[in-house]
Amino acid sequence: MSGLVSLVGAGPGALELLTLRAVERLARADLVLYDALVSPDAHTLAPRARWFFVGKRVGRPGIGQDAIHRLMIRAARRGERVVRLKGGDPYVFGHGGEEALALVSAGIPFEIVPGVSSAVAAPALAGIPITHRGLASAFVVVSGHATLAFEPVLNSLEPHSATVVVLMGLASRTAVAATLLARGWSPRTPAAIVWSASTPRADTWKGSLAALGGASPPDGLEDAPGVLVVGEVVSLAAALGPLTAAAPPSLLAVGQGH
Amino acid sequence: MSGLVSLVGAGPGALELLTLRAVERLARADLVLYDALVSPDAHTLAPRARWFFVGKRVGRPGIGQDAIHRLMIRAARRGERVVRLKGGDPYVFGHGGEEALALVSAGIPFEIVPGVSSAVAAPALAGIPITHRGLASAFVVVSGHATLAFEPVLNSLEPHSATVVVLMGLASRTAVAATLLARGWSPRTPAAIVWSASTPRADTWKGSLAALGGASPPDGLEDAPGVLVVGEVVSLAAALGPLTAAAPPSLLAVGQGH
Repeated sequence: MSGLVSLVGAGPGALELLTLRAVERLARADLVLYDALVSPDAHTLAPRARWFFVGKRVGRPGIGQDAIHRLMIRAARRGERVVRLKGGDPYVFGHGGEEALALVSAGIPFEIVPGVSSAVAAPALAGIPITHRGLASAFVVVSGHATLAFEPVLNSLEPHSATVVVLMGLASRTAVAATLLARGWSPRTPAAIVWSASTPRADTWKGSLAALGGASPPDGLEDAPGVLVVGEVVSLAAALGPLTAAAPPSLLAVGQGH
Repeated sequence: MSGLVSLVGAGPGALELLTLRAVERLARADLVLYDALVSPDAHTLAPRARWFFVGKRVGRPGIGQDAIHRLMIRAARRGERVVRLKGGDPYVFGHGGEEALALVSAGIPFEIVPGVSSAVAAPALAGIPITHRGLASAFVVVSGHATLAFEPVLNSLEPHSATVVVLMGLASRTAVAATLLARGWSPRTPAAIVWSASTPRADTWKGSLAALGGASPPDGLEDAPGVLVVGEVVSLAAALGPLTAAAPPSLLAVGQGH
């Protein structure tokens, strides 16, 4: 008898942004393999599971994709229900497709449980609609992990034709800004960095594309995940940001009940 | 005393893909203003609320953005808790930013509750990882609603440099394909249309970019929402599609409990 592996998106960070399906899969899990960006509170949702950290911490190597595949496959062959819990959505970067293919090759039943992607949610919670009539009718999401990953897109895309979102792009913010400026984007294009979206430590830097490369993280967020956003929609944060950055006090009390 | 308006993403369709925060806001809502793509089952989550349809049906005009703004503002001024329930994510197309600005102008407290976007989830549930190492390290999401909305992006983007996703693009699939082919994409690029993702009626067409314009919806899905996907990652659906298209029987039974 074979178990089941669920590749589950945990959303941008807040426990409340998990889906009902994610919560149900966690409640029935025997084993949870989780990443660095998953809320520690998620443990309360899988009380009978063994939890095993398989993510990468800054400056330290992770256990490697092959080892993650072996752990999932071995547990499923014992008949266990495995949740592979990944920050954001399982198929937005983060090797979800590779994990799914490894499961197929091994003949293990699996499913995808889509999650709220930080690409959209991080800007939204900072008051930045990723699309907006008259300002952006398209958006582009690139990985900032390697220059090869974003240059073909940012070198070619017509300036100001879409909102640009860079995930895992903090280290490459200077290169991203330089590429866009060289392509002809205005140095005055609004830009933002959203750190630790949806968590109590959430913070936002707002400025211009010309200043993006020099933007610094606030104290204590030097190792926090950050999402870069470039485009006219960032200007809406002046109106939409303060009210959406945190829920009103009455709702915060409710939220803590989860 | 003023109420609160929550702009809530309902996800791609399945009730289980709502977030915990969405469910909590619905449970406390006095009034729910909902769109066409929201699951009818969502009513069970807001038993004490009045439900009011403000979406657009094919071939019929909606009530208009101004009327939606007035309904939200009037109810909030009566001290009510309003949920504006939108398919997918509230800020991915669909006028979410306009609604937020109208609330700010009226001095109404509001919040954004991000949702699972169909742009990522519809491909994922059809077995298509929107990103995949070696195949796509970027993705582009455009609205197919108007040629002006997608042409600047698709006319400029370097061919094969990103997965292209078109929302609301069924009617413009011929124009989208023609634009990409003219830009230099290979006619053999894998392409897909995903209808009614995450619902029991979900279905997928897979073929080539050359054939995309001529693809027809399956019987009964002529008016269903559809997501276009173009890029090498579509080829992964041959391996990842069948297993992920539906959850295993044992999980379906569980899922129906929600």
